[in-house]
Amino acid sequence: MKSLIIASTSTVHGEKPLEYLFEELKLHFSNTNDILFVPYARPGGISYDDYTSNVEKAFSQIHKSVKGIHQFKNPIEAIKKSTGIFVGGGNTFVLVNQLYKSKVLTPLKEAINSGIPYLGTSAGSNICGLTMNTTNDMPIIYPPSFKTLGVVPFNINPHYLDPIPGNTHMGETRETRIKEFLTYNTQPVIGLREGSWIKVKGNSIRLEGGLKARIFEFEKAPYELDDNADLSFLK
Amino acid sequence: MKSLIIASTSTVHGEKPLEYLFEELKLHFSNTNDILFVPYARPGGISYDDYTSNVEKAFSQIHKSVKGIHQFKNPIEAIKKSTGIFVGGGNTFVLVNQLYKSKVLTPLKEAINSGIPYLGTSAGSNICGLTMNTTNDMPIIYPPSFKTLGVVPFNINPHYLDPIPGNTHMGETRETRIKEFLTYNTQPVIGLREGSWIKVKGNSIRLEGGLKARIFEFEKAPYELDDNADLSFLK
Repeated sequence: MKSLIIASTSTVHGEKPLEYLFEELKLHFSNTNDILFVPYARPGGISYDDYTSNVEKAFSQIHKSVKGIHQFKNPIEAIKKSTGIFVGGGNTFVLVNQLYKSKVLTPLKEAINSGIPYLGTSAGSNICGLTMNTTNDMPIIYPPSFKTLGVVPFNINPHYLDPIPGNTHMGETRETRIKEFLTYNTQPVIGLREGSWIKVKGNSIRLEGGLKARIFEFEKAPYELDDNADLSFLK
Repeated sequence: MKSLIIASTSTVHGEKPLEYLFEELKLHFSNTNDILFVPYARPGGISYDDYTSNVEKAFSQIHKSVKGIHQFKNPIEAIKKSTGIFVGGGNTFVLVNQLYKSKVLTPLKEAINSGIPYLGTSAGSNICGLTMNTTNDMPIIYPPSFKTLGVVPFNINPHYLDPIPGNTHMGETRETRIKEFLTYNTQPVIGLREGSWIKVKGNSIRLEGGLKARIFEFEKAPYELDDNADLSFLK
């Protein structure tokens, strides 16, 4: 049975990394003490070692040990043998490029489908969707494809941001950008606000975290869904 | 002699499209009354016809006529015969994809190098750089490459936005994103604020518009350059 937490952000303002998710993560990873961490998204160009060490510190608060996928000789075997997986945020282009380069995209999908509990934050959530076309990140690297895991039947926009009233900047709002996406693509997009996550348990897909999410569907006006909403109808 | 205006935005807040550039454009296009418009970036998914008609209205204020490249049977010939070119903003991924698809990237570069006056705004400015890796746009389409015109020896970040003091949003600032770009790439990036443009005349490359620009160079701290600064040393 698939088991995922797909979170908008690793960190909410004023808290330590993953802190707002600790209670949830204790349940999510209750059957394992060992987390395989994928540091490929490298926020700010941080090294894999430093990123993994930060994540290790966070998970030590809930008594889980963390090993980075780059510490294994064979990343594909590391995924196959994992009992819990966390793909962290950073730059989605960098992440997806490295997932293709290391040939771990398919093994990762198979692990998730086989029921290994998965946590994604930000870029690590983006890749759970059908494609990475709705990332907010700067395209600093050209990946072989924008196709991602597709373990949920829609696209994710993490760090979803409402238009700022009275803003004089002429760059597009997030809503405009996602609507543009839907002039070329038909899959739904979930605008996931910081502090929200999507919980997948088998065929159940629910919004959690106490906030509404903004839903964008092809040829429909965008609308809001409440916390705890069933998202499984979106496809 | 190359002659380009590479503008951060088509429109500044509270004004009509291109209005802030009219005096400059009269000089820039003083040798022609006919502008070839490239509407490929399609802001908000607008049709080529509607986009061209909007641009026609703007240019009629300075007595120039506008024809969209899509109105020609052969877009390559249209570029070869043009006497003034404007590539408008929208989505850079959509624009670059269509430039490749229509095989007009090389003809466009040749036209610019031969001295045909060029105006770019936003996405149309982005493509003047070496690559489109520093666009702010959402990757709603997968183009065949991120390589662009390279008619200036650096990258452009249009609509450059300073960090908002006191912001609680956890998504990356523009500065963070561009610094991330420089962990994988070495060319300079010019953060071009709305209201600014880069003026290229032969070998001269200058900042205009009354604002400072933020400069990002490989292995250097970002810094500011004043209005009218010479940018030709950046490569």
